[in-house]
Amino acid sequence: MPPITLTTDFGTTDWFVGAMKGVILEIQPAACVVDLTHGLPAGDIRAGAFALLAGYRAFPRGTIHVVVVDPGVGSDRRALVVASPDYLFVGPDNGVLSWALGREAQPEIRQLTNERYLRQPVSQTFHGRDVFAPVAAHLSRGIPPAAFGPVADQPVHLPWPQEDAVLYIDRFGNAITNIDRAQVRAIQIGDRRIAVEAHYQAVPAGEPVVVRGSSGFLEIAVNGGPAAEVLGLQVGDALTACV
Amino acid sequence: MPPITLTTDFGTTDWFVGAMKGVILEIQPAACVVDLTHGLPAGDIRAGAFALLAGYRAFPRGTIHVVVVDPGVGSDRRALVVASPDYLFVGPDNGVLSWALGREAQPEIRQLTNERYLRQPVSQTFHGRDVFAPVAAHLSRGIPPAAFGPVADQPVHLPWPQEDAVLYIDRFGNAITNIDRAQVRAIQIGDRRIAVEAHYQAVPAGEPVVVRGSSGFLEIAVNGGPAAEVLGLQVGDALTACV
Amino acid sequence: MPPITLTTDFGTTDWFVGAMKGVILEIQPAACVVDLTHGLPAGDIRAGAFALLAGYRAFPRGTIHVVVVDPGVGSDRRALVVASPDYLFVGPDNGVLSWALGREAQPEIRQLTNERYLRQPVSQTFHGRDVFAPVAAHLSRGIPPAAFGPVADQPVHLPWPQEDAVLYIDRFGNAITNIDRAQVRAIQIGDRRIAVEAHYQAVPAGEPVVVRGSSGFLEIAVNGGPAAEVLGLQVGDALTACV
Repeated sequence: MPPITLTTDFGTTDWFVGAMKGVILEIQPAACVVDLTHGLPAGDIRAGAFALLAGYRAFPRGTIHVVVVDPGVGSDRRALVVASPDYLFVGPDNGVLSWALGREAQPEIRQLTNERYLRQPVSQTFHGRDVFAPVAAHLSRGIPPAAFGPVADQPVHLPWPQEDAVLYIDRFGNAITNIDRAQVRAIQIGDRRIAVEAHYQAVPAGEPVVVRGSSGFLEIAVNGGPAAEVLGLQVGDALTACV
Repeated sequence: MPPITLTTDFGTTDWFVGAMKGVILEIQPAACVVDLTHGLPAGDIRAGAFALLAGYRAFPRGTIHVVVVDPGVGSDRRALVVASPDYLFVGPDNGVLSWALGREAQPEIRQLTNERYLRQPVSQTFHGRDVFAPVAAHLSRGIPPAAFGPVADQPVHLPWPQEDAVLYIDRFGNAITNIDRAQVRAIQIGDRRIAVEAHYQAVPAGEPVVVRGSSGFLEIAVNGGPAAEVLGLQVGDALTACV
Repeated sequence: MPPITLTTDFGTTDWFVGAMKGVILEIQPAACVVDLTHGLPAGDIRAGAFALLAGYRAFPRGTIHVVVVDPGVGSDRRALVVASPDYLFVGPDNGVLSWALGREAQPEIRQLTNERYLRQPVSQTFHGRDVFAPVAAHLSRGIPPAAFGPVADQPVHLPWPQEDAVLYIDRFGNAITNIDRAQVRAIQIGDRRIAVEAHYQAVPAGEPVVVRGSSGFLEIAVNGGPAAEVLGLQVGDALTACV
């Protein structure tokens, strides 16, 4: 039984994530449901796309990744079921799946149109519970992706930032960049040039350092402190990579 | 094996929820334990009652719902084990179960008095670990509700608000009301009349909207924003429903 | 199949905890992974040591406890695999395991040196995913602790506070002390003497009270309120125990 992962902006203070799991367990009592994260900023499709990209390949082949960052819930935005050779994906067609799908070989992308697999009545505000959770559970029971609807024309693609920039700030205040080029030796922010080192403690406590992060991108850190706060960094800030 | 859900105000920064799961797994190694939420405001019985009401029916028949919002822990407040045709419930007798039980047909409500099923010694500050978790685990092993104690006289009932009002504010800042009447067309707050629409994006970004929420109650939202903050709404605020 | 518990300072807003679970499930598809907590303050080894101490014995015999509070990740700090008669432990050798190990009879403490059981390539910033998660999964498959490396000389021990003091502040604002002596009748803070009572509600709402907490230590509470805030208490504050 492959795991089902959940990635949402639902937070954990309400019953939303629990309700999704209840629906999954009703359809697939043996489901193994794993939270990737529910702490994405509300409606932040870019953060959801990056969290999925950074985390999804840690899971075994066959894992079903459900992503619900869905500010357009209830509108006419489409929903997707995607199969790649290694994984299945379920989520709204707003770009939140697109960075992970860009790493997958020839993903089969289908529009979710078959209402047979939805929880009825479908709420117009909670497709996590009524659309994406039951579809993931049916996928885990072996229903093939083609059963959920036709091939999707032109799924929404979230543009990858073209300029070197801060892409995501994590819980430790590390500023993860979109830079994964092997030859970069330092990152310059304003007047300050911060060298790439092997690990956080290569510099004294409180000093900034750039390290290769666990998802392959360079990240700007401070040894023992929150770099984004110390250095005043925000998502979208431009950077200069030095070779 | 039916799931066991946990709904508490324990938060997730300490070891409290984990310890409950450890106790459950010791008694029932095959348990499937699902968090409904642990983010309820500390001691907020009303929020716990609503979260349970909103979430519990997403789970399969036979699910055991454990609710621990228990400011009276260690005092002489009673503890309950409840069986309805569809679900089992465990929690303190302070009203936190009462809104869900009001939806269940003829629930059998028992006072938890049999100390045989508790974890010894019973701490006076953590009945989640020592009382409610082991009782849920024993229920999942098939111990019948009647084994835990006698029928409870007059369990505490939390009054449902008689006036139209804000009942709960969720993680997105949506203000969920106690209004579920089908004919309501708008909600008036002070001078402002906000129409019921099909979904959040029926109004321009930043504008307020009323939608039928996923648990059946009308909720006041702002498209893409936190309505409670934007409109200055708090739990308990009176509203006027317009038909 | 014994549970695997995770105790970290990773928070739950990013994909870090999910990625650890993915790695575990790849190696051990039947794993039961339980969060003890991920809400420890970033890099706070003392809080991690206490959360583990307070929570680990609620789990069944054989449970594998993984603790990752690891500010030295990527440096030359050692990693440990520990077997006691009742539990297995995995974590960095920075003292975070030491308070729990001090309660275990003759723990066998090994240095994790065998790279065969790691996820390759090993990131220098995320040993939770690449070192501790796969090792825990292999332990759960029955790989013996001795396979992971030689006996560790002089593992780091975190000193237990010698003076009576506040040790940990929990989610409710209760100030947990390091005092577990049975004969203490009150705790004095400045001019104020707060008596030990049986439970929180032994005093009027809003009044301070000392109770025996669920992990055996006295804790300073306020009935219905956050004691640390009301009384201005912080971790490390000295206390006077009165017999």
